[in-house]
Amino acid sequence: MLRVGVIGTGMIGQEHVRRLTTVLNGVTVTAVADVDAAVAAEVGGRAGATVHPAGEDLVADPAVDAVLVCCWGPAHEQYVLAAIAAGKPVFCEKPLAPTQEACLRIVEAEVAHGSRLVQVGYMRRFDFAHRQLKLVLDRGEIGTPLMMHCAHRNAGVPSFYQKEMAITDTAVHEIDMVRWMFGAEIAGVRVLVPRRNSHGGDLQDPLLLILEMTNGVLVDVETSVNIRYGYDIRGEIVGESGTASLGSLSPVAVRRDGRVEHPVPADWRARFLAAYDVELQEWVLAIAGGGAPPGPSAWDGYAAAVVSDAGVAALRTGERVAVSLAERPKLYAPGR
Amino acid sequence: MLRVGVIGTGMIGQEHVRRLTTVLNGVTVTAVADVDAAVAAEVGGRAGATVHPAGEDLVADPAVDAVLVCCWGPAHEQYVLAAIAAGKPVFCEKPLAPTQEACLRIVEAEVAHGSRLVQVGYMRRFDFAHRQLKLVLDRGEIGTPLMMHCAHRNAGVPSFYQKEMAITDTAVHEIDMVRWMFGAEIAGVRVLVPRRNSHGGDLQDPLLLILEMTNGVLVDVETSVNIRYGYDIRGEIVGESGTASLGSLSPVAVRRDGRVEHPVPADWRARFLAAYDVELQEWVLAIAGGGAPPGPSAWDGYAAAVVSDAGVAALRTGERVAVSLAERPKLYAPGR
Amino acid sequence: MLRVGVIGTGMIGQEHVRRLTTVLNGVTVTAVADVDAAVAAEVGGRAGATVHPAGEDLVADPAVDAVLVCCWGPAHEQYVLAAIAAGKPVFCEKPLAPTQEACLRIVEAEVAHGSRLVQVGYMRRFDFAHRQLKLVLDRGEIGTPLMMHCAHRNAGVPSFYQKEMAITDTAVHEIDMVRWMFGAEIAGVRVLVPRRNSHGGDLQDPLLLILEMTNGVLVDVETSVNIRYGYDIRGEIVGESGTASLGSLSPVAVRRDGRVEHPVPADWRARFLAAYDVELQEWVLAIAGGGAPPGPSAWDGYAAAVVSDAGVAALRTGERVAVSLAERPKLYAPGR
Amino acid sequence: MLRVGVIGTGMIGQEHVRRLTTVLNGVTVTAVADVDAAVAAEVGGRAGATVHPAGEDLVADPAVDAVLVCCWGPAHEQYVLAAIAAGKPVFCEKPLAPTQEACLRIVEAEVAHGSRLVQVGYMRRFDFAHRQLKLVLDRGEIGTPLMMHCAHRNAGVPSFYQKEMAITDTAVHEIDMVRWMFGAEIAGVRVLVPRRNSHGGDLQDPLLLILEMTNGVLVDVETSVNIRYGYDIRGEIVGESGTASLGSLSPVAVRRDGRVEHPVPADWRARFLAAYDVELQEWVLAIAGGGAPPGPSAWDGYAAAVVSDAGVAALRTGERVAVSLAERPKLYAPGR
Repeated sequence: MLRVGVIGTGMIGQEHVRRLTTVLNGVTVTAVADVDAAVAAEVGGRAGATVHPAGEDLVADPAVDAVLVCCWGPAHEQYVLAAIAAGKPVFCEKPLAPTQEACLRIVEAEVAHGSRLVQVGYMRRFDFAHRQLKLVLDRGEIGTPLMMHCAHRNAGVPSFYQKEMAITDTAVHEIDMVRWMFGAEIAGVRVLVPRRNSHGGDLQDPLLLILEMTNGVLVDVETSVNIRYGYDIRGEIVGESGTASLGSLSPVAVRRDGRVEHPVPADWRARFLAAYDVELQEWVLAIAGGGAPPGPSAWDGYAAAVVSDAGVAALRTGERVAVSLAERPKLYAPGR
Repeated sequence: MLRVGVIGTGMIGQEHVRRLTTVLNGVTVTAVADVDAAVAAEVGGRAGATVHPAGEDLVADPAVDAVLVCCWGPAHEQYVLAAIAAGKPVFCEKPLAPTQEACLRIVEAEVAHGSRLVQVGYMRRFDFAHRQLKLVLDRGEIGTPLMMHCAHRNAGVPSFYQKEMAITDTAVHEIDMVRWMFGAEIAGVRVLVPRRNSHGGDLQDPLLLILEMTNGVLVDVETSVNIRYGYDIRGEIVGESGTASLGSLSPVAVRRDGRVEHPVPADWRARFLAAYDVELQEWVLAIAGGGAPPGPSAWDGYAAAVVSDAGVAALRTGERVAVSLAERPKLYAPGR
Repeated sequence: MLRVGVIGTGMIGQEHVRRLTTVLNGVTVTAVADVDAAVAAEVGGRAGATVHPAGEDLVADPAVDAVLVCCWGPAHEQYVLAAIAAGKPVFCEKPLAPTQEACLRIVEAEVAHGSRLVQVGYMRRFDFAHRQLKLVLDRGEIGTPLMMHCAHRNAGVPSFYQKEMAITDTAVHEIDMVRWMFGAEIAGVRVLVPRRNSHGGDLQDPLLLILEMTNGVLVDVETSVNIRYGYDIRGEIVGESGTASLGSLSPVAVRRDGRVEHPVPADWRARFLAAYDVELQEWVLAIAGGGAPPGPSAWDGYAAAVVSDAGVAALRTGERVAVSLAERPKLYAPGR
Repeated sequence: MLRVGVIGTGMIGQEHVRRLTTVLNGVTVTAVADVDAAVAAEVGGRAGATVHPAGEDLVADPAVDAVLVCCWGPAHEQYVLAAIAAGKPVFCEKPLAPTQEACLRIVEAEVAHGSRLVQVGYMRRFDFAHRQLKLVLDRGEIGTPLMMHCAHRNAGVPSFYQKEMAITDTAVHEIDMVRWMFGAEIAGVRVLVPRRNSHGGDLQDPLLLILEMTNGVLVDVETSVNIRYGYDIRGEIVGESGTASLGSLSPVAVRRDGRVEHPVPADWRARFLAAYDVELQEWVLAIAGGGAPPGPSAWDGYAAAVVSDAGVAALRTGERVAVSLAERPKLYAPGR
């Protein structure tokens, strides 16, 4: 039974505590911490977990085998570094840290530690449809990949959503996904700006990101965050002799009122709930068995941050922005 | 230029005159006749055709190479027989005649004539999707056929629609289609009665017909004639190693309001307009070239009538009714 | 943490032990028993569970809160009755018992006990697509249901598969499903016999079952158990104003070699693995919370047995066979 | 009966002569001309048409009401100008002329003539699916359009195919289509270059064109001309509250070998044969009735040429290229 401590008991933290205590197997929540002591006490009480005054205390707790970092982004770095210092596996919600410099410090700390401890919460890699898509590609069913067309659509976004978030919060999932899908880095980014959706007020929405990968694969990503009709994640890989797409996952087809209807998920929960479950279950299994974290690494978190920064610059300048990554440490070599 | 005379200038007759004069190639309408002389005069005038007082006159007109019979069912026999007597090709809208006895008299007259002159207007055989389905079957892609599931759905029917018409007017299209699809006769019929659709008032709707074919293929046909959502023709053949279905023919997919929508045709026109065009164009081409009529024969019209009668008996008795056909004349042997 | 004892550690028992110990939450396996002591010892050892010499000992073990019966069918009755006698919740794999008489004895024992303890392992009710289908129906989106078309297809079956098993093992899932879907009993059964699939040797395959429900809904079920192309479960409910179908659940679409391809599951595992997980997880949650079993009851197991018997009789005689159920005890009233 | 003269009796000319004489209604071919007198004699002989030594003679023939220009591109201008000079309607296969300057001369000649005589052969506007897509858009079902994603895929191309032809021959169909679909001009073009498909040898294939429209709609067009799996035309319009896509037009679905298969057309004939028929039939109807040509105008042909040139420049330079059109004469005002 893996004993996990959860730092950050806000919305996403509570969701993960629920998942760990009522859905997943082989794991228990033994400790929680939050800057809001009252919320921490309530969540911890429900879970039968110790409530620590600070994240560092939680990391140091001998009843904590591994740490989940779910607090707000600016505090990720300190707790992830604390976990590395303690030699404890740590699952950190995305983004790994708000700046590429902070991400790089985490990478360096993990390299200094000498083995992988960090996993970042990009859950697409655990989604069944994305995994099947990668299988089709890796089996060579469509030949060498040349392009990928993606769309990331939200019915709506909250009022605090800024145009840069279309890259840093929305398209960042595609940024991580294509690096994993094609086993290559992103070399350059452009952002093209279509006519504005009036449902988003002054927000510059939608956008079309163009990602050039180091192996030549060209990726376009539509982000539409006020499209109303639902939450829709689309992807089609164009290979040399065919294409492979994310399927329609509609469990029912209804014929009425002059048409055949297939429901579209209302939001990311409906679409990716199972992926979140699989993501943490596989992490629990691997960590409990003494293995390395099975998902996106600190390097992946760093690379996503660098590409996001390039995307924001491309949006601001209207120009192509080259992506410049640090040299990748051997710890993160493919197949390791 | 094939010169055609049209007997019956009601709704379907006018539709065919429009088709022959403004859509099809290689054909002209030279004569019309109808019991309603005023309508005949108007339709004939528009088409630049001679208006005959009686169908027999039209058949005898030397400017008429071939005849279309579009009048009401009880009058089909006399005009088809007249055309056979005159040795002129005749296309007769379905049904060939209202009773199997009348149909058999036509068969016998054609056999006495010694070559095929008659085609009956079952247009499914000219529908692109049905033809592709037959191609898949005939190429052996799913192995020997064992079963077929069909549905024939109308949004609604007129108030004069009687329960027997679900067999004689609606399912009769499937009756002809499966005889053609599987190259076999129907040996027995059952009709099962589900819960009644309240949109149809007292009408016994829907029904489930069971057709047993002489080669063992078992066909089930749902007829739903008040289902409101649209006109929907479905079919799936179950073979030894796979199945083949009529595809969805939706030209567009619309994502809105929480779903993906594919439009369904509102009525048979939207679904089968092209099939009617192809049906008559191929008939014109064959007849103008001196060939035999390329579609359903008088024998097919007779067999459909016999199976319809058996279906009506099965509906009334609740029992399986065997189908008993006359011996098939050599004129109608397959491959002839 | 619910403590479960598992009677029967053959294939399905081992699968459930794996599920309970490595997938589900809030449950532990504390005891096992099997007629094969060596297998029981191995499975129990791996799970850290006590190995009992007999199922009755397992039921009596105070460290067992609830019982899973996974042994062969003829032994189901004795262990289910033992669990009822001990007042312990019991999940019994399908069928509840091999004869309707045995099933009825279990019903009577549970009624005598006075509250529900028994759940039978019909997992369709926990399948996401079937649940969504029921939601569409229950929300009235297609109006009152009138018919349902089902197909249950297997790529192949083992050599010991007998023609009656198409009803007792295969279609029995649809028998339970439609009773749940429409909230009604089955009143009569017919079995129609199409042309035989040569891949099945002498086996009478496929079949078309006709189920008449007490509320008038007419259900047809194709069973094809040698169809090679894959495992395919299809269902379309015909309502007064529309229809609702099980959707295509293909996670990917591949374009290659002249076509768009959507993969079909190879077998029931690929199709229903998640449904088995949900089935037992919801049972664990309900039982651990002191609630009634949330799935098919002993009455459902009994009704399935009676309908299966009628189906076998219908297959043998070629006639419609009426279904005659005992009076339903109040314990099993809907909404209770 | 409209009397048409066909200049150019090569492949496409013969195809149109076949269409005019054996498919369409209300039209006859009275004259042909070709630089290859032998071919002209053969084609003309079959059609019962006068064979003219030169296109100019054909245009002057009083038995020619309207002209089809199907010869090679460099000769289009002279015959279109000749028809305008003669005041005869002229249907010119695409491209209108090989240079934008030549196209502009045709525009100016037609403006000087004072009424529309010219139609250019962009047949997408007559394709049923594209028309339904435009209907959905024009009815406001998805709100104001913001983006469009297109793919134009060929299984393969002949060896003389050059990289610029991906724009001038392939994407030019999308260039015309989006101008019509969105009722706006194209303001700028970019061409992005993905990894090269090795099936195309040294050919730079695929490409991603980016078209910026004057109303802000951003269009991306994938051209893949060696993708082997088939001929596939895809399009999805992204609106403010939904999207609309070209549907799948598969007439059948086949289940076999572990998958559901929908056939994809092998080439443009299979996909667009009906669109060519509709294109010419509507032209015949309009011209025979004394109306203006109902399809793409000389202005549309000119605009396509200018955008193509910009696309070729964008491909060569790697930069965005602005599109600079002459002022649009009132003759081509929308709604005129």
